[in-house]
Amino acid sequence: MVLFNAAQSTKKVVNVALVGPGGVGTSVLEQLSKLEQFKLISITNSKGTYFNESGIPFASAKSELAKASPKCLEKEVIPALAKQQPCIFIDNTSSEDVAKLYPVALSHGVHVVTPNKVGFSASLSLYNHIKETSAASGAFAYKESTVGAGLPVISTLETLLKTGDKVTKIEGVLSGTMSYLFNTYSKSGKNDDILFSKLVSDARDQGYTEPHPGSDLSGSDVARKLAILSRHIPGLENALPDGVDSVDVQSLIPAGLDGDISPEDFLSGLKNHDAHYESLRKTANDNDSVLRYVGVIDAASGKIKCGLETYPSSHPLASLTGSDNIFLFHTERYGARPLIVQGAGAGSAVTAMGVVGDCITISERV
Amino acid sequence: MVLFNAAQSTKKVVNVALVGPGGVGTSVLEQLSKLEQFKLISITNSKGTYFNESGIPFASAKSELAKASPKCLEKEVIPALAKQQPCIFIDNTSSEDVAKLYPVALSHGVHVVTPNKVGFSASLSLYNHIKETSAASGAFAYKESTVGAGLPVISTLETLLKTGDKVTKIEGVLSGTMSYLFNTYSKSGKNDDILFSKLVSDARDQGYTEPHPGSDLSGSDVARKLAILSRHIPGLENALPDGVDSVDVQSLIPAGLDGDISPEDFLSGLKNHDAHYESLRKTANDNDSVLRYVGVIDAASGKIKCGLETYPSSHPLASLTGSDNIFLFHTERYGARPLIVQGAGAGSAVTAMGVVGDCITISERV
Repeated sequence: MVLFNAAQSTKKVVNVALVGPGGVGTSVLEQLSKLEQFKLISITNSKGTYFNESGIPFASAKSELAKASPKCLEKEVIPALAKQQPCIFIDNTSSEDVAKLYPVALSHGVHVVTPNKVGFSASLSLYNHIKETSAASGAFAYKESTVGAGLPVISTLETLLKTGDKVTKIEGVLSGTMSYLFNTYSKSGKNDDILFSKLVSDARDQGYTEPHPGSDLSGSDVARKLAILSRHIPGLENALPDGVDSVDVQSLIPAGLDGDISPEDFLSGLKNHDAHYESLRKTANDNDSVLRYVGVIDAASGKIKCGLETYPSSHPLASLTGSDNIFLFHTERYGARPLIVQGAGAGSAVTAMGVVGDCITISERV
Repeated sequence: MVLFNAAQSTKKVVNVALVGPGGVGTSVLEQLSKLEQFKLISITNSKGTYFNESGIPFASAKSELAKASPKCLEKEVIPALAKQQPCIFIDNTSSEDVAKLYPVALSHGVHVVTPNKVGFSASLSLYNHIKETSAASGAFAYKESTVGAGLPVISTLETLLKTGDKVTKIEGVLSGTMSYLFNTYSKSGKNDDILFSKLVSDARDQGYTEPHPGSDLSGSDVARKLAILSRHIPGLENALPDGVDSVDVQSLIPAGLDGDISPEDFLSGLKNHDAHYESLRKTANDNDSVLRYVGVIDAASGKIKCGLETYPSSHPLASLTGSDNIFLFHTERYGARPLIVQGAGAGSAVTAMGVVGDCITISERV
């Protein structure tokens, strides 16, 4: 006979539906499995969806996908989730098609949690549609992991703003790959002799860049994060009508290497630009400074941009190491020196932590 | 005719009772006044309490204190608050007597928010009493501002732990005064010639220390913060039976200057120790290191201690400036490099921000 567990029974159960059981998705399942308030009722991969309102064991969720059948997320899955509230739709994909369904889920009262940057950095019309549908239905759309993974970036920005502080500027190194490249290439004091193209090539071999390093060097990932952050700031809500495409981005992909070109040809072509980077590095070094690829949101001027900049050795950005992200919140209250959040801004476990943290917050609010 | 405001009317009103309208309290009132979901119903200073369930205008709250009359917080005020739920009891004092009333408020279903470190760094019996009463009644006890003021320190630690990360070590500079003193005294590279006693004296003149600098140099403020943080960490819940008094503290008050002594005599006596500090500074400098007064919680060894330590110039603690606090969370997930939170850890506006942030979280949960 199983004794009634009063403590457990009073805990509200929150249903979750997971889309995209890849690296982050697998970590999300593992972290959720330790928390008694969550029940998995749906799992979706590229083949289809397995839905079971009685609950799918977290541990075997991925193998249960063998039972998945093609189902329309919009017409079949979301309406089924809407009948199992409270329910959280977790999008672990990087798909725009899935992001476009957030308003559908929200209008059905289904909460959305995601590390997918696309929906919140897309056109203002999609962004506003998500925001307005959430406000109208009362369902939450949470996205801590879209910027800095599990680092408390969006929650910190929201607390600053909700309590009445005024953000004057946000600046930082928002890409782990860009962080690694320039922390290695340009240091306070003595630099190694490594050529920029060789560094990028080595970084690719070690898995620090995407398979095609151009994806990282384009700066678009940084621009997406700037779009997401800037839309929180009063006065900048409408600054980016086309989202990421409206950000002033300095791409580090040299002219002529920006087309449909293999990674090998890209890296080979990059060698022609080693002298350019060497000259930038030397000038910085001669001025006791370093190079960093930074994103900046300047509330006063309204400028939202990313590119390669020079920072003095004494600046917090100069002492960055590894592939850490760093965010500096310059505000009215944190006047003299900014509020700083720093640490790993990518990786399955820390990205999943941001996702699961959002799920916990929702479970506390419903 | 006043038109019915639908948006406003659907917002839940949360009552607040404020104790201690000093520097932080005044900032709390100002920040709360901008948020439509809060209604002030009680304000208490050393003279008494003014209670008005119809609401006290935030702007004139301090002048309304002229109407205050002596009332027993425990027997009169808290029971009155209990009838006005949801209600938050905000303690902006540094009083142990008020801290001892948290269990009373919580058992009445009244939430507690405070920057007062005393209750959570006191004996384990009071701490557990607060925790258990909160769990039993479901009323929340929030304390973000007790450590690092408005910096996201406790919320970050809680998210790490709730999502299943394992904290191996927390280390940091937890006192703005200690931060200022050693960031100024011991720098990477060239140091000024200033004597330690002169620096402390100047810092006092500029308001960087308490009127009696011994209060800061004792390390007890750092020890209190360590007590609060450590009690969150699995395995360390019972490590400090006497709270702050169980922490292994290195006081920087020299023997003979630790009694009832005037600030002037204290500063004069400190001169006899300038050679000692100069020697520590020189040794650190010769090893390309700096001195920092740090707090450390080592989960593996169970050691919770604070004292003067040496850190290499490349360490994040070495590049600290001004009176910033810095917190390094070493965890299983943030393996290679810690999650870092840094910024002003004291001041009315930022302390109030942590308090008001907690109030907002409660208003979202009730």
